[in-house]
Amino acid sequence: MKVKLGTIPLVYPIPIILAGANVQGRANFATLGDCGIMGLNPPLVYVSLHQNHYTTRGIEENQTFSINIPSTSMLAVTDYCGLVSGAEVDKSALFEVFYGELETAPMIAECPVNLECRVVKAFGIEHRRIYVGEVVQVYVDEACVVGKEERRTIVPMTELAPILYGLDNRYYSVGETIGVGYAEGKKYQREDGD
Amino acid sequence: MKVKLGTIPLVYPIPIILAGANVQGRANFATLGDCGIMGLNPPLVYVSLHQNHYTTRGIEENQTFSINIPSTSMLAVTDYCGLVSGAEVDKSALFEVFYGELETAPMIAECPVNLECRVVKAFGIEHRRIYVGEVVQVYVDEACVVGKEERRTIVPMTELAPILYGLDNRYYSVGETIGVGYAEGKKYQREDGD
Repeated sequence: MKVKLGTIPLVYPIPIILAGANVQGRANFATLGDCGIMGLNPPLVYVSLHQNHYTTRGIEENQTFSINIPSTSMLAVTDYCGLVSGAEVDKSALFEVFYGELETAPMIAECPVNLECRVVKAFGIEHRRIYVGEVVQVYVDEACVVGKEERRTIVPMTELAPILYGLDNRYYSVGETIGVGYAEGKKYQREDGD
Repeated sequence: MKVKLGTIPLVYPIPIILAGANVQGRANFATLGDCGIMGLNPPLVYVSLHQNHYTTRGIEENQTFSINIPSTSMLAVTDYCGLVSGAEVDKSALFEVFYGELETAPMIAECPVNLECRVVKAFGIEHRRIYVGEVVQVYVDEACVVGKEERRTIVPMTELAPILYGLDNRYYSVGETIGVGYAEGKKYQREDGD
């Protein structure tokens, strides 16, 4: 039996990230969950912000942004960045900031993973501004990389320890590994299918 | 010390969902992680698919789609839906299918949460087709709803037990609750800020 809950964008879990942009030459960071992947090749991601967001100004200005993925150990400062506006608080002072190839997308050294992005499409729907970015470089803490040269890859998500969010307004950690992609379905095919 | 990993859309975790569309009158479902929230009000979500995906045809046809969020108990059949194309396998036979207000967005009764969406914007980037949908109704299993009438809300994400995915090609479960939104940052403000 299903219950109708109305018109809420109830996709879960949401990855909590810090979106970075330079606003009038100074680094600013906004906490958001309206972020995700749009494609692997080309490598597309997006962020969605309120048109009046301080960070929005910086993305419009430079047509670049960063996605910084905090760990659970950064929960308090991450939530704090969602409470205050860059118009009032200098959030660049909260972190060690670095820049990459694009030179205008500020990144947070304390986050284990940083994506440097160039805007390839932008559009508005009512008061929202949505920026689709092509990833030009990914920066990862050395300790979170395994393998050598061409075979380098990232440690399991349990070690990266991202912050998850649900529309119940709670933060969660990542749980256990429960399977491997494109492998679980083969068992299903054998056992339950034809 | 940061290591450059190249151009990968390394946002994590990714919510694993089953996107539903009617293709020539028959329900079809595609497993994907390229899905997320674009806004709360208006309630905007998106899915991104390959232009040659069988499901893409159905979304183009009806300008509607559904997002069905499976639980970890559905891992095998969910992964299976990502292994086979609707052009070869009748995936409508795998689930109990129901329709809502839009009449053309098929939903999966076995998933605890279903979003019925109308396309409000569509665009292409190289071979990807991205559909932004406005949520017209959310259907939730009665057992996953708490509270009454206007105060109805959803159970914690630990009980919904969604499937998470990482670009390490592993599936994960949701872990523990670690905090409350817009509350953790207030502690930071008191303890570490001015």
